[in-house]
Amino acid sequence: MALSPAVALTRELLRCPSVTPADAGALGVLERTLAAAGFVCRRKTFSAPGTPDIDNLFAKIGTGKPHLVFAGHTDVVPPGDIARWRFDPFSGEIADGKIYGRGASDMKGGIAAFVAAALDYVARHGAPKGAISLLITGDEEGPSINGTAKLLDWAKGQGEIFDHCIVGEPTNVNALGDMMKIGRRGSLNGVVVAQGRQGHVAYPERAHNPVPAIARIAAALASCRLDDGTAHFSPSNLEVTSIDVGNPAVNVIPARARASFNIRFNDLWTPETLQARIRELALAAAGATAIELEFAPCNARAFLTEPGAFTELVAKAVEKIAGRRPELSTSGGTSDARFIVRDCEVLEFGLLNETIHAVDENASLADIDALTAIYGLVLQNYFEAP
Amino acid sequence: MALSPAVALTRELLRCPSVTPADAGALGVLERTLAAAGFVCRRKTFSAPGTPDIDNLFAKIGTGKPHLVFAGHTDVVPPGDIARWRFDPFSGEIADGKIYGRGASDMKGGIAAFVAAALDYVARHGAPKGAISLLITGDEEGPSINGTAKLLDWAKGQGEIFDHCIVGEPTNVNALGDMMKIGRRGSLNGVVVAQGRQGHVAYPERAHNPVPAIARIAAALASCRLDDGTAHFSPSNLEVTSIDVGNPAVNVIPARARASFNIRFNDLWTPETLQARIRELALAAAGATAIELEFAPCNARAFLTEPGAFTELVAKAVEKIAGRRPELSTSGGTSDARFIVRDCEVLEFGLLNETIHAVDENASLADIDALTAIYGLVLQNYFEAP
Ligand SMILES: [Zn+2]
Ligand SMILES: [Zn+2]
Repeated sequence: MALSPAVALTRELLRCPSVTPADAGALGVLERTLAAAGFVCRRKTFSAPGTPDIDNLFAKIGTGKPHLVFAGHTDVVPPGDIARWRFDPFSGEIADGKIYGRGASDMKGGIAAFVAAALDYVARHGAPKGAISLLITGDEEGPSINGTAKLLDWAKGQGEIFDHCIVGEPTNVNALGDMMKIGRRGSLNGVVVAQGRQGHVAYPERAHNPVPAIARIAAALASCRLDDGTAHFSPSNLEVTSIDVGNPAVNVIPARARASFNIRFNDLWTPETLQARIRELALAAAGATAIELEFAPCNARAFLTEPGAFTELVAKAVEKIAGRRPELSTSGGTSDARFIVRDCEVLEFGLLNETIHAVDENASLADIDALTAIYGLVLQNYFEAP
Repeated sequence: MALSPAVALTRELLRCPSVTPADAGALGVLERTLAAAGFVCRRKTFSAPGTPDIDNLFAKIGTGKPHLVFAGHTDVVPPGDIARWRFDPFSGEIADGKIYGRGASDMKGGIAAFVAAALDYVARHGAPKGAISLLITGDEEGPSINGTAKLLDWAKGQGEIFDHCIVGEPTNVNALGDMMKIGRRGSLNGVVVAQGRQGHVAYPERAHNPVPAIARIAAALASCRLDDGTAHFSPSNLEVTSIDVGNPAVNVIPARARASFNIRFNDLWTPETLQARIRELALAAAGATAIELEFAPCNARAFLTEPGAFTELVAKAVEKIAGRRPELSTSGGTSDARFIVRDCEVLEFGLLNETIHAVDENASLADIDALTAIYGLVLQNYFEAP
């Protein structure tokens, strides 16, 4: 069976077991392929105390404006229990019109589709009137410290200016073309500790039980309606993820109780306004109990690329190839788009997210080829105004 | 310095390091002392799977009615950090008019006072017109399984019928004579588990977070007013002692959450009516979340000895010797009186509880001697109607 260039490259990438932080040769595969087509490739390894070193790749062809950048990651989440997989998760097995493997949809298939589209474009047109870049990291599924954020900073230090970005994350829910992401909610983690005074349950007047306060705070935070959403965003949502007292003694009133929570918030909030609101809610629910409230550093603000010429160009290409108009969504988790949005307009479009992070992750060969055609049409219309 | 018989016996008992379940010779000291004065002594060792064997002592003089029984325990709680004690906690050191050691107030001093009073009574009157018994266990501070409850059952199997009981627990708060206990609240432990469905915080609609339900339940239970108390009892009280989810992942909605609680309840409730009420409150607060509610077996029902001739006899003796009328209270934790109340009228009166279970536990020598005089006057008035 002759594989299309995009599927063949997907398979080659899947055969690299690049579970974060391992690269396992994945960036080398891309570097060789892109360099052979005339892309200038730079490998950058970034380090930080307490985190593993991470390999990254910046590849570019052409110069000047407009500058379109494709962003993606070659690292993957662990396969979990390999015995539960139909095929070895790092073999790129093909069956029933699908290619199986960890990262098939998230997002080696998406990267392969863009590389194939870019090579095809360059083969037919030569270098673009402007520039095409690829920002590929090995640290998206990990702490995201030595990846996209640092690679962007480095590129800007080299004088690179980006105009538009497509992140190749798997965005479609049920069929290729049904969803494009034009923003993401932010994410904020916090911990609240209620401080009491230990004692014996038979003498509650000599103690101060912090558990009722932590229960009231958790109930108040969990039931608060932060906002009603916006035209592009669903309402912000808070989940209390844990309450922990750890008191094994049935006759003892504990001294401390703690609750952890995560908030996914839309662009009606900044981390600062959100923290102030949470503090207000927690203090009101705490009553006479002393509390401490701490937030983790927020590295995921909410962002939105307003629908406009760029989103319309991509949406039209999707509609033409896939036969459906994508919903412009801001749902789901965070992605590296949060770093790129500081510098240019960003949208996300890739394969289906149905099997990502799950056993038997796969991608349809037809979808990989259709995505290649979509990316090709985007390049065509982006550089050769019709 | 010549020690009174009660203080000398207290010291002898304190020198036995009888931390539950060890006896360390303490019951032997009592047995020898009582047998020498004509008491018939029986030692009984009780066993149960998963608990240590426990030594107990039943001593009796006289026959027939009325039958007054004194109940107590020779076991003590651990001394904790011995370096923080002024003296070796098992040396019975005397300083500044006090005798120091683990168990001085709780309740070797109380036992010694009763034994001294009984020996003095028998020396002066011979065997009583009726009977005096001592029920002494080594398992009050432990699980209380192989102690008073089984010793009572055994004694009843021997044909013993008890009319009145004094438990020698330390009942006084600030000065000898300020408090007598005529009942105790019951104690009931429960656990509620809220069952959800695990998921990712970014997709709460695909999960079911059990934390808000456990928080609402904990807040509802902690704030419920079970009753307003009675003439003899304070209001029943519930303390939520722990909430535990144990979810370390900030981006995961957990599957389960659990809360533990203890209720100290008065005689408006039985364990059964209380369980029904708690179930009602928990279900109402749980909303759409499934919960499981489990109660530990209740071995401490609320009980009350109605004030009457017996409590008045003891209160008058206290007033005469100590110069103050004792408050008839039902406050504090549980005691072995909960087992005895099934068979006869019970009250509790002993030394001060100021230093019990603490570093440098001690008892005033004057209090031990005054308590001996009070117990002596009780025996006098109980058997020799004035
Ligand atoms: Zn991804
Ligand atoms: Zn005691």
